[in-house]
Amino acid sequence: MSVLYVVKIGGNIIDDDRKLASFLKDFAALPGNKILVHGGGKLATRMAEQMQIPQQMIDGRRITDAETLKIVTMVYAGYINKNVVAQLQANNCNAMGVCGADGNVILAHKRVHPTTDYGFAGDVDAVNTDILKSLIDQQIAVVVAPITHDKKGQLLNTNADTIAQELARGLSRLYEVQLIYSFEKSGVLLDANDDSTVIPTINPAYYQQLKTEQKIFAGMIPKLDNAFAAIDSGVKKVIIGKAEQLTALVAGQAGTSIVHE
Amino acid sequence: MSVLYVVKIGGNIIDDDRKLASFLKDFAALPGNKILVHGGGKLATRMAEQMQIPQQMIDGRRITDAETLKIVTMVYAGYINKNVVAQLQANNCNAMGVCGADGNVILAHKRVHPTTDYGFAGDVDAVNTDILKSLIDQQIAVVVAPITHDKKGQLLNTNADTIAQELARGLSRLYEVQLIYSFEKSGVLLDANDDSTVIPTINPAYYQQLKTEQKIFAGMIPKLDNAFAAIDSGVKKVIIGKAEQLTALVAGQAGTSIVHE
Repeated sequence: MSVLYVVKIGGNIIDDDRKLASFLKDFAALPGNKILVHGGGKLATRMAEQMQIPQQMIDGRRITDAETLKIVTMVYAGYINKNVVAQLQANNCNAMGVCGADGNVILAHKRVHPTTDYGFAGDVDAVNTDILKSLIDQQIAVVVAPITHDKKGQLLNTNADTIAQELARGLSRLYEVQLIYSFEKSGVLLDANDDSTVIPTINPAYYQQLKTEQKIFAGMIPKLDNAFAAIDSGVKKVIIGKAEQLTALVAGQAGTSIVHE
Repeated sequence: MSVLYVVKIGGNIIDDDRKLASFLKDFAALPGNKILVHGGGKLATRMAEQMQIPQQMIDGRRITDAETLKIVTMVYAGYINKNVVAQLQANNCNAMGVCGADGNVILAHKRVHPTTDYGFAGDVDAVNTDILKSLIDQQIAVVVAPITHDKKGQLLNTNADTIAQELARGLSRLYEVQLIYSFEKSGVLLDANDDSTVIPTINPAYYQQLKTEQKIFAGMIPKLDNAFAAIDSGVKKVIIGKAEQLTALVAGQAGTSIVHE
């Protein structure tokens, strides 16, 4: 099986034109099969303010009412997705931007929750790999906006980290998938305030030990649990680190690698 | 060669949810290869008003300044394109939404004009048919938003009629292309005020005669000149008529067919 990189780019990069341009240059230069998953950073929030549409947040999650769905569809699948594609093309990387409705790539259902109405939030049911494979095999980088659909005509807003993980899992039957989560820090840190304390590799046994010794920053635990869940369902390797170091992350020279053994 | 329908849907349909749903049901049911090209109707104008961005028009053309480009990218390539795709999926028609930057499908350059600065308006240089063919041959309906790019990272705003014509021309080397322009009227009329006077077929000789006898409404002449230009560059047939009659238009039972002989 050939290698496929699924790269999730963090909001801090999307919000910074210079950093984004530099990241896209590095991403364009990555050899081989690749998918880029992006969110919307703060642009959707700014757009909602400009259009005077109040945003409701519960536990750090945006409640997607009808007007907010319209905004995230415009900002994620329109503005950001197409500008990222145009910049990749400028870097001689043929790219195709999609959301989950395109080619029925990501099927979801409207979230059902006993007490909170999250509005048009989508929980993923299935990833349709046929069209993704066809694009990847034509050496096209697929750029994915975190909008899904229910195949009944309804678009849905889905967390970009989840999209990246579901794509990585779905495609791990066809490719040796490396899932790269970029965020603000240089990797998983032994000391949350010291970027030089990156742990290079974590396997399940070491993860247990780190948790027992309470050496993992609590905020990292859901991310790591997700990473191990991805590994358990067929993803070869998960790498967590800084987008500015993409080339080094892929080469295993930076960030934290989450591995089976 | 197999038949390919390239259908341009008018703004009056995009602006009417009920008509759009009905049209998309008909489009989904069209057998065979198909492409749908849409504009934005009045949605982009309304969005600009909501965001308090003044719109400048010259000779009926929108001047695409940087803020307006952002709006049309969001509205055309985001909101409309993805909702159309989701509705086609609901009608069991696998569809993929693209703009001209995706797969480098439509390459353009910023319009150069001796006296008017049209801003980020794109004039088409080339249609890249490889990816379109790959999607079409996988029985995927391609839904095209009228945004192009210059392969230097700049998105551009391009007239949707022009996009439809350029796609039809480019793909006529690979398919027997029928280009369908939908608009408000039932076809080309002998009496502009009487929808029952549709001319079923116009060939070049008859077109000359109609022009000599001044029987063609002046506003139709650019549309017809474009249709004949398409025919001259390889498109098999151009059909002009009402979107509400799509099935009949394709069957040759409604609208005006522009043909070689």
